[in-house]
Amino acid sequence: MTPLYRQLAEHYLGAIRAGTLRSGDRLPSVRRLMNDHGVSLATALQACRHLEDQGWLEARPRSGYYVRTARRGRLPPAQEPAELRPDPAAYVGIHERISSILERGQRAAVQVNLSLAVGAPALYPTTALQRSMQGHLRRTPAVLTTMARRHGHPALRQALARHALARGMQVAPEELVVTHGCVEAVNLALRAVTRPGDTVAIESPTFYGVLQVLESLGLRALEMPTSPATGLSLEALEFVLREGAPGGQRLAAVVVMPTLHNPLGCTMPDAHKQRLAALCSEHDVALVEDDIYGEMGDADSPIRPVKAFDRSGHVIHCGSLNKVLAPGLRLGWMAPGRWQARVEMLKYAQSRYVEELPQLVAADFLAGSGWPRHLRRLRAALQRQRHQMAEAVAAHFPAGTRCNLPDGGLLLWVQLPGGLSSERLFDAALAEGIKLAPGTMFSNSDRFGDGLRLCCGQVHGAPVEAALRRVGQLARELLGA
Amino acid sequence: MTPLYRQLAEHYLGAIRAGTLRSGDRLPSVRRLMNDHGVSLATALQACRHLEDQGWLEARPRSGYYVRTARRGRLPPAQEPAELRPDPAAYVGIHERISSILERGQRAAVQVNLSLAVGAPALYPTTALQRSMQGHLRRTPAVLTTMARRHGHPALRQALARHALARGMQVAPEELVVTHGCVEAVNLALRAVTRPGDTVAIESPTFYGVLQVLESLGLRALEMPTSPATGLSLEALEFVLREGAPGGQRLAAVVVMPTLHNPLGCTMPDAHKQRLAALCSEHDVALVEDDIYGEMGDADSPIRPVKAFDRSGHVIHCGSLNKVLAPGLRLGWMAPGRWQARVEMLKYAQSRYVEELPQLVAADFLAGSGWPRHLRRLRAALQRQRHQMAEAVAAHFPAGTRCNLPDGGLLLWVQLPGGLSSERLFDAALAEGIKLAPGTMFSNSDRFGDGLRLCCGQVHGAPVEAALRRVGQLARELLGA
Repeated sequence: MTPLYRQLAEHYLGAIRAGTLRSGDRLPSVRRLMNDHGVSLATALQACRHLEDQGWLEARPRSGYYVRTARRGRLPPAQEPAELRPDPAAYVGIHERISSILERGQRAAVQVNLSLAVGAPALYPTTALQRSMQGHLRRTPAVLTTMARRHGHPALRQALARHALARGMQVAPEELVVTHGCVEAVNLALRAVTRPGDTVAIESPTFYGVLQVLESLGLRALEMPTSPATGLSLEALEFVLREGAPGGQRLAAVVVMPTLHNPLGCTMPDAHKQRLAALCSEHDVALVEDDIYGEMGDADSPIRPVKAFDRSGHVIHCGSLNKVLAPGLRLGWMAPGRWQARVEMLKYAQSRYVEELPQLVAADFLAGSGWPRHLRRLRAALQRQRHQMAEAVAAHFPAGTRCNLPDGGLLLWVQLPGGLSSERLFDAALAEGIKLAPGTMFSNSDRFGDGLRLCCGQVHGAPVEAALRRVGQLARELLGA
Repeated sequence: MTPLYRQLAEHYLGAIRAGTLRSGDRLPSVRRLMNDHGVSLATALQACRHLEDQGWLEARPRSGYYVRTARRGRLPPAQEPAELRPDPAAYVGIHERISSILERGQRAAVQVNLSLAVGAPALYPTTALQRSMQGHLRRTPAVLTTMARRHGHPALRQALARHALARGMQVAPEELVVTHGCVEAVNLALRAVTRPGDTVAIESPTFYGVLQVLESLGLRALEMPTSPATGLSLEALEFVLREGAPGGQRLAAVVVMPTLHNPLGCTMPDAHKQRLAALCSEHDVALVEDDIYGEMGDADSPIRPVKAFDRSGHVIHCGSLNKVLAPGLRLGWMAPGRWQARVEMLKYAQSRYVEELPQLVAADFLAGSGWPRHLRRLRAALQRQRHQMAEAVAAHFPAGTRCNLPDGGLLLWVQLPGGLSSERLFDAALAEGIKLAPGTMFSNSDRFGDGLRLCCGQVHGAPVEAALRRVGQLARELLGA
């Protein structure tokens, strides 16, 4: 149940988003809110403070709450792809490019890191996790010296299956396999359904980890047109499923991140997700769903994964607690659908079972009341920081910049104007101790040279603001040069 | 430095092994030992008690120490392979066979488990590990919520590199990659140096995990003749390296476990190890060395791995702390030699970096004085339990049984008489709650149907003794039938 004050806040947030209330408008007084909505003074005040907290309102002394003036209007979103046909499938040769970027970054003395897709430690419930682990260590130290159980600890699989329920998925605990993070899950999924030389459809741009997995498994990537608003083009996918990839090869799998996409930030509409599940089922093709940001939408209402629409077991759902609970535990899982036996075999042959202590800690936390509380706090902080970052980009970056502002998660996707190379910007910023993730990391093609991924995982304080100001200046200088 | 009492004990153990002192012989008196060797009373007594502890001597009241009477003479070792030519290379189709055995085992109500290659929790320094982890959790809880460092924590890589030094290896900390156990290391090694369809030479029998890795990567196994006394036949390997595998295919890699082999228990002599390293270098073939039992020899003197003889970087050395320190931490590592860059890429693409908390705990322990103390205690316990188990097999199994008694580690390899099927014995024992590892798990061929792997990782108390007595009876019944 959403608390009353949150319902009230959402109501007025909807009005701000729709433009019913605009920058500088005064919110109805607290008394008025009490009357209009039949709520208590405490509830009305809490709703206003919540919106203030989120950066939507500002309190003016002796006057009331006002819709905040953005420092500059919201930027237009990134452009839709020009062409709705995929490129020919190509073996991925991204390793050198990504390594070169990662290594330049590792050699530098970084002061402000906006390149990692991870939250600052303060966003996570460190103390609760610490206490839970200490408790398990005290009560059952033998967990350190005993081999782990098959496919994952029952308590964690139980907790994960229960949470999946709320998101519309029907998976039994025994249908889940605990993995060493989401990357291992995607890896196992692709190993289960492909052979080297096969063609796999992916979004363009996509998370560079997917490109690395494809390269390391000797798979060909078919980069599909992808909308920065709604994700993978289903028209293009349907065409390829019907006609074969350019060159005629049959698809062996589709890899998508349909919820809070990395790097675009977009979420596929439910109708698309449903259609996507049906398409893969009709054409008997495996769909690997990377759902790592699935719990990180701003709104309280759950976001459904494609797996929720899967009737035939063609969706291999991959999740993780790395981004949402504890980047230091490296816990992921997967629901392999019809490939369960093969995934279990591959997991065992690849790295045996995941050790149990972190699983016990995660299971505790997911089953308790700390989890919904943590999620609310995390989502609110990320929403605030994301909006602050978007405002800073709007204020400091050169005219013509575009920026996707997602409804959740850790990422912003910026499109630089005038075809400015984000890799040049990356190098210029790095020389001043600021680390960015240039768009070339996210595609085997050269299509995203003007893209830039920013992470809003840390508090938007003076260092982050100053870094974005400086990056904006550097971008202008590079454009002028 | 080996303590004086241990030197003295080793001296007399040598005499017992050589037959200079036989069952029932009286050891020189303590006074005599003091005189003969110029040691103190305490040292002489400690040496006797150590040998008593190990099961070599028994104290008779008011009479002195006597060489123990084995309940039955030591069994002859397993037979040498009849044929020194490898079979044709074959794709591994071991999965069904192993799964079927594992699953029958999982369904049963097991009371005595002799099938796992792992020590009982009491063999490991649980309290020290627990305290260390609690300390790290208290001092740096952010380890739970921070992403892990590249390729492994520097403190662990440093500690591992130092211990490697004592075993004759020259590897810098930066040349090590921390993995999720030894299985992941072997997996990455084979992914780095092979492509699906390639042929890989392996020992026969071999650890079933190696067979599973080969199968899961679509590799062909060339099972090589392997001596139960000295391991892989170098003559056969040299022939294959020179002439190609039967069918003419070139070897892509060789996988060996040259120290305390699983399941045979044998250790390749140093001269063979040196020759093996040279052969792989001459023929430019990768050698994957699974060294998981490398620290678990009975003697204090370190056992050299093949990597110690590697001059050209052709040896990919894989190790683990699972068996020797903490089965619940799942920490492994590898020294990938000339394939380091490719292994680092594959590790990152496969499962990212290993989480840091267990690495910190292991690094602490390896760098402290607890490590040599723990090793001494572990080795002594395993030696005692191994000899007790060998005696029980000799006492209870049918005539004609053979048994390898290794100089270290967790395993005994039994060869049943009269071609008795160990898988039938496995099923019969399982019905009575006793779990064994039948020989068919350790080869793609049908050569080891009469083999049986026993684990001596638990205290040899009444339940283990009774279980072995019952297995011996069942074997006799099956032979009679």
